[in-house]
Amino acid sequence: MAEIQLKENERIDDLQLSGLKIIQNSRAFCFGMDAVLLSGFAKAKPGDHVLDLGTGTGIIPLLLSAKTQAARLTGLEIQPESADMAERSVKMNALEERVAIMTGDIKEARMLFGASVFDVVTCNPPYMIADHGIQNPADEKTIARHEVLCTLEDVIAQTAAVLKPGGHFYMVHRPFRLAEIITKMCAYHLEPKRMRLVYPYADREPVMVLIEGVRGGNPRITVEKPLIIYSAPKIYTEELRRDYGY
Amino acid sequence: MAEIQLKENERIDDLQLSGLKIIQNSRAFCFGMDAVLLSGFAKAKPGDHVLDLGTGTGIIPLLLSAKTQAARLTGLEIQPESADMAERSVKMNALEERVAIMTGDIKEARMLFGASVFDVVTCNPPYMIADHGIQNPADEKTIARHEVLCTLEDVIAQTAAVLKPGGHFYMVHRPFRLAEIITKMCAYHLEPKRMRLVYPYADREPVMVLIEGVRGGNPRITVEKPLIIYSAPKIYTEELRRDYGY
Repeated sequence: MAEIQLKENERIDDLQLSGLKIIQNSRAFCFGMDAVLLSGFAKAKPGDHVLDLGTGTGIIPLLLSAKTQAARLTGLEIQPESADMAERSVKMNALEERVAIMTGDIKEARMLFGASVFDVVTCNPPYMIADHGIQNPADEKTIARHEVLCTLEDVIAQTAAVLKPGGHFYMVHRPFRLAEIITKMCAYHLEPKRMRLVYPYADREPVMVLIEGVRGGNPRITVEKPLIIYSAPKIYTEELRRDYGY
Repeated sequence: MAEIQLKENERIDDLQLSGLKIIQNSRAFCFGMDAVLLSGFAKAKPGDHVLDLGTGTGIIPLLLSAKTQAARLTGLEIQPESADMAERSVKMNALEERVAIMTGDIKEARMLFGASVFDVVTCNPPYMIADHGIQNPADEKTIARHEVLCTLEDVIAQTAAVLKPGGHFYMVHRPFRLAEIITKMCAYHLEPKRMRLVYPYADREPVMVLIEGVRGGNPRITVEKPLIIYSAPKIYTEELRRDYGY
């Protein structure tokens, strides 16, 4: 493993998968279960080119490098501090041959990469609609959580542009925006083909939605069995332990 | 209870609710759990005027007459035999003052009732897309199950026309058509506000989706906790037994 310099407040976390480690900043936005569950929901075939939009510290390309045989995984991140941590994590894991991090704006993905070039696009976007109540719109955590720099429509429009016809889009989001997610995906011909709701307990409202779209796919969606996080307080379900190492 | 004539192959079933009974024909389409679950998902305020599109033998207005204080419940049904059974069931339950059955086409609902007149519209429509594989397009069961005489878009367009602004639409459908349901509802400004998926078991794919739309509502949907039918083979869950009498 390459020698890596840590900056102030940074730490190295073990991803509990194939020896992968990730650099995060304890004072900044750290990856959540959302990203981990998306990495299990997403699929990539051997040889695929994968783009992760808004990659943060690179959690999704790192996990997908171990979970799939994708040939090339690119993470696009607008915040230089996050992109810098992601790049050092790639080096630390000796993944420079397969994983690339680029600093840039989701809204410019088509310009940066060109049209119809990726087999797979993944995204764990900001969930919250930006509004005037936001105190620090330039704050790193605000940018990760609120649609300050890009909207759901930006994500979907850019995905539709950079995906090959028949390419697959995988996103995690909040259920309260499901109607907008589906209408926007359909508007950009990313046909929703598979969806899974994530429930904290079997008798609670879902807290996340995992959704797959296919560029130019035919209408027909498979709604999968519930993904349930806890079987009892602080006890993860069998699926979470078996498939995600919780 | 009024004296009611039964025709060939007809039977009277007890609805296990407020002494309600319903006439059905054993050889024709009989109501399913879909309609029963929709009657629990739908809401109507005291005094509301409710329209049930494609009412069949009237199961939904009958159940809602007991479950709500709606002032007036109208069932629209295109098949004369079903509408005739529904009308006799209304009389048998002495509900003529609150429940009316009309024989007619969903596609003409706006013409029949006028625009913006109902507080609530309910619908348990045909689920399957009509195609050339259908053997008997005039068959009563085919019409109830396949979009031979009306499509999802017809249901949604007519609902949007006859609902008052702010009025509520409640539908049960199959999850595989969820993307189309949501995009069409949004296209006709029936904003999806609440959704519940019905799973046979907690670890299986859902078999039904219950969805509520509000005419002219703001975007934001609540996805509710799962509705699970069985806790073990042939054993209904507590919710099914408590709320629906299974």
